[in-house]
Amino acid sequence: MDLAVSPLALSFPEMPPIDGVTLRAARARYKDWNRADLTYVELSEGTALAGVFTRSLCASSEVELGREQVRGGRARALVVNAGNANAFTGYRGREAVEAIMKQTAEHIGCLPVEVLVSSTGVIGVPLPQDKARQGLAAAFAADIAGWEDAATAIGTTDTFAKGAHASAMIGEQRVELCGIIKGSGMIAPDMATMLGYVFTDAAVEPAFLQNLLNAATAETFNCITVDGDTSTSDTVLVFATGKADHAVIDSWESPGADAFAAALTDVCRNLAQLVVRDGEGASKFINVRVSGAVSDDSARKVGLAIANSPLVKTAIAGEDANWGRVVMAVGKAGEPADRDRLSIGFGGVWAARDGLPVEDYDETPVAEHLKGKEIELAVDLGMGSGRAVVWTCDLTHGYISINADYRS
Amino acid sequence: MDLAVSPLALSFPEMPPIDGVTLRAARARYKDWNRADLTYVELSEGTALAGVFTRSLCASSEVELGREQVRGGRARALVVNAGNANAFTGYRGREAVEAIMKQTAEHIGCLPVEVLVSSTGVIGVPLPQDKARQGLAAAFAADIAGWEDAATAIGTTDTFAKGAHASAMIGEQRVELCGIIKGSGMIAPDMATMLGYVFTDAAVEPAFLQNLLNAATAETFNCITVDGDTSTSDTVLVFATGKADHAVIDSWESPGADAFAAALTDVCRNLAQLVVRDGEGASKFINVRVSGAVSDDSARKVGLAIANSPLVKTAIAGEDANWGRVVMAVGKAGEPADRDRLSIGFGGVWAARDGLPVEDYDETPVAEHLKGKEIELAVDLGMGSGRAVVWTCDLTHGYISINADYRS
Repeated sequence: MDLAVSPLALSFPEMPPIDGVTLRAARARYKDWNRADLTYVELSEGTALAGVFTRSLCASSEVELGREQVRGGRARALVVNAGNANAFTGYRGREAVEAIMKQTAEHIGCLPVEVLVSSTGVIGVPLPQDKARQGLAAAFAADIAGWEDAATAIGTTDTFAKGAHASAMIGEQRVELCGIIKGSGMIAPDMATMLGYVFTDAAVEPAFLQNLLNAATAETFNCITVDGDTSTSDTVLVFATGKADHAVIDSWESPGADAFAAALTDVCRNLAQLVVRDGEGASKFINVRVSGAVSDDSARKVGLAIANSPLVKTAIAGEDANWGRVVMAVGKAGEPADRDRLSIGFGGVWAARDGLPVEDYDETPVAEHLKGKEIELAVDLGMGSGRAVVWTCDLTHGYISINADYRS
Repeated sequence: MDLAVSPLALSFPEMPPIDGVTLRAARARYKDWNRADLTYVELSEGTALAGVFTRSLCASSEVELGREQVRGGRARALVVNAGNANAFTGYRGREAVEAIMKQTAEHIGCLPVEVLVSSTGVIGVPLPQDKARQGLAAAFAADIAGWEDAATAIGTTDTFAKGAHASAMIGEQRVELCGIIKGSGMIAPDMATMLGYVFTDAAVEPAFLQNLLNAATAETFNCITVDGDTSTSDTVLVFATGKADHAVIDSWESPGADAFAAALTDVCRNLAQLVVRDGEGASKFINVRVSGAVSDDSARKVGLAIANSPLVKTAIAGEDANWGRVVMAVGKAGEPADRDRLSIGFGGVWAARDGLPVEDYDETPVAEHLKGKEIELAVDLGMGSGRAVVWTCDLTHGYISINADYRS
């Protein structure tokens, strides 16, 4: 099954190398495809690690082990397998991950616990240990790869390579942050996973790095949805090599902490939005802006209820300013709302205000806006000052085709 | 837009008249369609009333008033408008409902509070009072209608008329229960609502009738889903005229209480399943049976997570025994589960047991089962003895066509 490149795709950005990060890729041949599918990233000694993982109760061994490894706060390598999620594979799946950790640790002379492993692809088939072992050996010997090569190698049903870059000044020292990500939805019988990795040469203490990642995740990765289906393998890791010449950032009082946090959030937001732009069948990128909620968290929940509603998503696919469906989604969110204070608008034009259709509502500019690829949907609840932005895509025949028409 | 009759449609059953219930229908012409769209049901004096309503926080005036009326426990009439939901219409919508209550109360000589009103159709347009007034006057003068006429008149985008019947013996007295329902999903820019009505000649005290309805709803209407989008107007009402000759049922100790409760649940289950059978774009009816949960409520939540997953629904549309997607849905449900105790099967064949694919799994009978229209999906969590059954339909191109391709 060849997927057309998403109409919302962006070209891969210019991204500088990161001191202390070496990328390599090779063919483990997890699937019968003609490209690298095993990515190996070596990290310099002392690299700080932070990570966030799926909340699925059926998470893969990679995720279970990753959670333990993040508590250690240090990493020397990352291995990503594309084509097999190794989820729901019991002890055999866990053995396959531990074998990769051991082989890599022996290669670079570190502890197995410092080797992070991610896998994405089909569920229920243990990762074949022979393919992993040979692929990993090939990767150790491979030429150094670039960011776009690595972003391509970690993909499965992704239709374009996804990367983002930011920099920050820590005093006089400029630090770089480069991120790559994969994910778009699911394809029979694969379950796509969102795997994201951010690399930086900044020096950041692991516990504080984890705090920064948690905060960034709350307003970036946790604010996107394609189809509301949570993967068993979602993983975002941040690696900070500390090669840049500045005092270690270990609290909000550290010089440059604010700048670094802003750059990290910036990269995370760009990566998160790229996943939505590659959403299965997506033809429109939708910004759902919720204001006037009782809290920011409440606003996010309302935003996700709207963004996950198949009726809102199909209305936008049909370029239909159907604000009645938005009313429905707000009503089902279960968050404090009052029908008579609710306002809804598209592309900067209010269609309904304070619980009533706008009297002289002109749908012409709204219809024009909905013909575009970037949609603005605004909801004001009129209850308080909580606000959030959630990003999603529309629901089209393409989603059904990808997930129902093609068989495993 | 003409919709083809659902491939899962059932023919309308034989249903007897109910003593104390008189059906009439007329054309209010809420939309430009060639059929009756205002249904008027007159109920004999002393009819007991119970009802359950949408939990939407953006509910219509009909729902708000209905909640108050149910507390009174008595009804003399029901008026159903099809083609306009009268939701999100503020004080003008409420005035339209109150006008209908007043006109009907004057006609039959009762209190306005004894007149129940439901409306279904487009959101955001106040119900036109002139059409309602003329339609209602025409209904008062109309010939007596049958159950199938009424079931057709309350429909909007429904593709077939939906009714269910049961009887129960209260001592030596046989009582009848007849129900009609409408609902299938949504169509631009209408938001379909699920409106269900059960009529019986049994004599039941209103508070106990409400208890019975709440219990029946928990295992019937609250166990179906088409697309997870909750309407602003969902309403189920039960009217008990008390014309049958038996002692009033007012507690579980009353003779015949068990039999009546079973018959009521039976009618509610049949009506609920009929809505799923008319689910937008549905090609398969799916029984999701969850066992081994820590509680029945937990089982229901897991069942709904599976039934609402677009990936599970598209897999079944594609006749793909993709149990990896079921693992995903269990994992995201947030209920107690353990990957290594989870079992999943289709059509009576286990594909995975205790967290591992079944070694000698033969997909042939499963593939054959999935080609049918009635699908059995079983999930055992291996945690406890909680169980539930949830009913849903698959997600097909038909759903997208109905909700995105056609414009308002």
